[in-house]
Amino acid sequence: MDLFLDPESGEPLAGQLYEQLRRAITGGRLLPGDRLVPSRQLAAELGVSRHTVATAYGRLVAEGYAEGHAGGGSVVAASPAPPKGVNRSGPAAALRPARRFAGWSPYFRPPPYGCRFDLRPGLPDPTLFPTLLWRRQVAAAVSSEHREYGDPAGRIRLRRAVADWVARSRSVAAGEDTLVITCGAQHAIDLVSRVLLEPGDCVAVEDPGYVPVVRLFTALGMRVVGVPVDDQGLVVDLLPPSARIVYVTPSHQYPLGMTMSMPRRRALLRWAARHDAAVIEDDYDTEFRYVDRPLEPLQALDASGRVVYVGSFSKTFSPSVRLGFAVVPQPLAEPIAALRQLIDWHPPTAMQTALAGFINDGLLDKHIRRSRRVYAERYHILTEALSGPLADHLTARTPNAGLHIAAFLRRGLSENEVLHTAARSGIVMAGLHDCFQASPAQPGLLIGFGPVSTTGLPTALGTLGRILAS
Amino acid sequence: MDLFLDPESGEPLAGQLYEQLRRAITGGRLLPGDRLVPSRQLAAELGVSRHTVATAYGRLVAEGYAEGHAGGGSVVAASPAPPKGVNRSGPAAALRPARRFAGWSPYFRPPPYGCRFDLRPGLPDPTLFPTLLWRRQVAAAVSSEHREYGDPAGRIRLRRAVADWVARSRSVAAGEDTLVITCGAQHAIDLVSRVLLEPGDCVAVEDPGYVPVVRLFTALGMRVVGVPVDDQGLVVDLLPPSARIVYVTPSHQYPLGMTMSMPRRRALLRWAARHDAAVIEDDYDTEFRYVDRPLEPLQALDASGRVVYVGSFSKTFSPSVRLGFAVVPQPLAEPIAALRQLIDWHPPTAMQTALAGFINDGLLDKHIRRSRRVYAERYHILTEALSGPLADHLTARTPNAGLHIAAFLRRGLSENEVLHTAARSGIVMAGLHDCFQASPAQPGLLIGFGPVSTTGLPTALGTLGRILAS
Repeated sequence: MDLFLDPESGEPLAGQLYEQLRRAITGGRLLPGDRLVPSRQLAAELGVSRHTVATAYGRLVAEGYAEGHAGGGSVVAASPAPPKGVNRSGPAAALRPARRFAGWSPYFRPPPYGCRFDLRPGLPDPTLFPTLLWRRQVAAAVSSEHREYGDPAGRIRLRRAVADWVARSRSVAAGEDTLVITCGAQHAIDLVSRVLLEPGDCVAVEDPGYVPVVRLFTALGMRVVGVPVDDQGLVVDLLPPSARIVYVTPSHQYPLGMTMSMPRRRALLRWAARHDAAVIEDDYDTEFRYVDRPLEPLQALDASGRVVYVGSFSKTFSPSVRLGFAVVPQPLAEPIAALRQLIDWHPPTAMQTALAGFINDGLLDKHIRRSRRVYAERYHILTEALSGPLADHLTARTPNAGLHIAAFLRRGLSENEVLHTAARSGIVMAGLHDCFQASPAQPGLLIGFGPVSTTGLPTALGTLGRILAS
Repeated sequence: MDLFLDPESGEPLAGQLYEQLRRAITGGRLLPGDRLVPSRQLAAELGVSRHTVATAYGRLVAEGYAEGHAGGGSVVAASPAPPKGVNRSGPAAALRPARRFAGWSPYFRPPPYGCRFDLRPGLPDPTLFPTLLWRRQVAAAVSSEHREYGDPAGRIRLRRAVADWVARSRSVAAGEDTLVITCGAQHAIDLVSRVLLEPGDCVAVEDPGYVPVVRLFTALGMRVVGVPVDDQGLVVDLLPPSARIVYVTPSHQYPLGMTMSMPRRRALLRWAARHDAAVIEDDYDTEFRYVDRPLEPLQALDASGRVVYVGSFSKTFSPSVRLGFAVVPQPLAEPIAALRQLIDWHPPTAMQTALAGFINDGLLDKHIRRSRRVYAERYHILTEALSGPLADHLTARTPNAGLHIAAFLRRGLSENEVLHTAARSGIVMAGLHDCFQASPAQPGLLIGFGPVSTTGLPTALGTLGRILAS
């Protein structure tokens, strides 16, 4: 092995030698039992004093890298090798993920190579992003920001801005003390659930529903029960009495798209009061509303303080900023902040400051209005296709809002086959089948119109029509 | 109540009226049982047709906000009020945090009003932050960044940059596939624990140890066992055989500051192999090393793939950027990414891109070298005071690295009293007492030298000396 000592470096030569030998041992270039070159010989080879080599060897022995050898001299110790009983080849059993994670891999991947039209649901159009305006906010935020650990509930400036904004845009009653800034809607759901639930608690979700949230509850070790939905939304009468949290998407049911009716909203709140359950209201994309006005959110209807309202800036603004929020009942605010401080503490300060400025300057409203106009065009193109050329093969329920439409496939068509054939033509969509849990799954397509261009969408739908017909 | 209809707005007048009355009801300005002004009278007052008012009232009745009244006319319905059985005054039982969070509040607060010298441990100096260089990186990142959902393991560019950096600076063997970008070190510990552990599993920590991590494991529902430390670090022989994770700070034990000796490192790895446990090695601040060279990290000594190495940019760079990382054994990389995608997904894309540029341009190394020189001066001021004027009252163990020194108080001095008297003089420190779990707690001070100025530190220590003497 090569040893190289540099007398000019300022490091003692013995230290340099020790360091290089240790690396050779831990790096496996010297193996347990290997004999170290006798100190006299090595000193001569390197042109250093024997004392230098002896010092380095002495330290290696003292620290257990080497041991004295019966015949004189030193050998590499046995201990840097893997401890006895360890299988070098297989992973340690200790490193096997808990059972509930067996075989998990990320559910969302970038569009595959060859994708021309990304028609997956829940994705905004990245080309609408107001890069220059945002960069200005971020640069200003970096210049002025506090460099210390911040408030685990989020910067007060951003909490005020978001509280005003949801009060204005969605009639949600939020104060700065009951609003928590998170890194997206699911992060909010995670924090609330961790504070409220014990392992094995029952959580009720819509069926069909939003798979990532179902998986999140599963990851939290909860028992997840799917509850059917009908035209009015979640069928409250079928809720399991033991549910401690009911997770719903009342403004725009995911994936089917209906709005939960007002009587059903009241029934859900009455049910929650009777069974002492909390309700998580996920309002993930109703800023993009094309028809009618929104109904009062559950959070505003709730007088007993058991509704958690979660929102995200991933659709209204961009998934890349990773910002969302929860409006929580007062008793939850402090425990969530305490828990949060132990985990990720808060989103980057500059991003929070920048978003506060962006909202306060009216730029978010402007961006949403502009985006809504663009998405409305695509929404109309898609609804017309679904009630026209595609109507023979797809039965769609036209939603009032959002970035996708769910459509059931006519009998005889295989969801898998349609998805695969479409993908071969460069069109990527999601299937409805996977959104079902206990209810009998119905084959269908979730057709998103976020990232696809307005000029490209008719082409994509034309191709889809030909695929369905053949 | 004021009703205001705007005939120019383009909204139907009936809709405007309905909206305002609904808000009045849900906002509590109209209470259950309140009689609505008769439609004929209201129409006259507002100067609209009676049909307009009747349409608005009809919708309120249809949606359950109002009901027909026996004597004719309409009254506000009972249902917007809290459902029966709910106590308006107290919080819903459903909203009580789980038992393990009872009474929790954030453990770290901004320095109190009147604080002149923040001598708390674990805080870097915010005035050292290279604002201009960082702003340039962030602005460039915002301009060019991807606007889609990103890789839940972190951007490949940043993973490569960090992997190279830890290999270079700490001899950690990390590939881009086994490195996960997180929002700080504790976020990494949280993710790893969630993937590996079942509720109630035993986790071993150092005693005294780092309280936030102890609390995090408690929040995760784990059984936390404190294991004593001696001059060589964690006493491996005292580890509980059932521990599934051993959490250690070998480079710079928190809070006492010793380095885990090489024999002890080997013993810990042998123990982990024999008991099939995982080891989390938290290397939170050893980039600031003033004496001697670092020993090989456990991660590099480990041949059986059971060590998770976690690091943070909160001390080396800034807590406000909220970035850290974990180097994980291969079998954990995919489940962590899958779990992560369900929670916060990834740190903001622009922050990741900016840090990658900052590291690749050599600016992080430069920043650390510059900071180390500044902290080294403060370290020497503090160690000299501890071996000089303060030695009568404090027994310090001088660490090789970090941003604080732990010092035991001489018999007879009360930790609480010293901390309170110091706080009254504008000096904020942390106590050692709270860091102990099972071991008999020893009173002492944790004296940080991060955020205090080099010129202010002697003044602060002079005041501390007078407080201790009196």
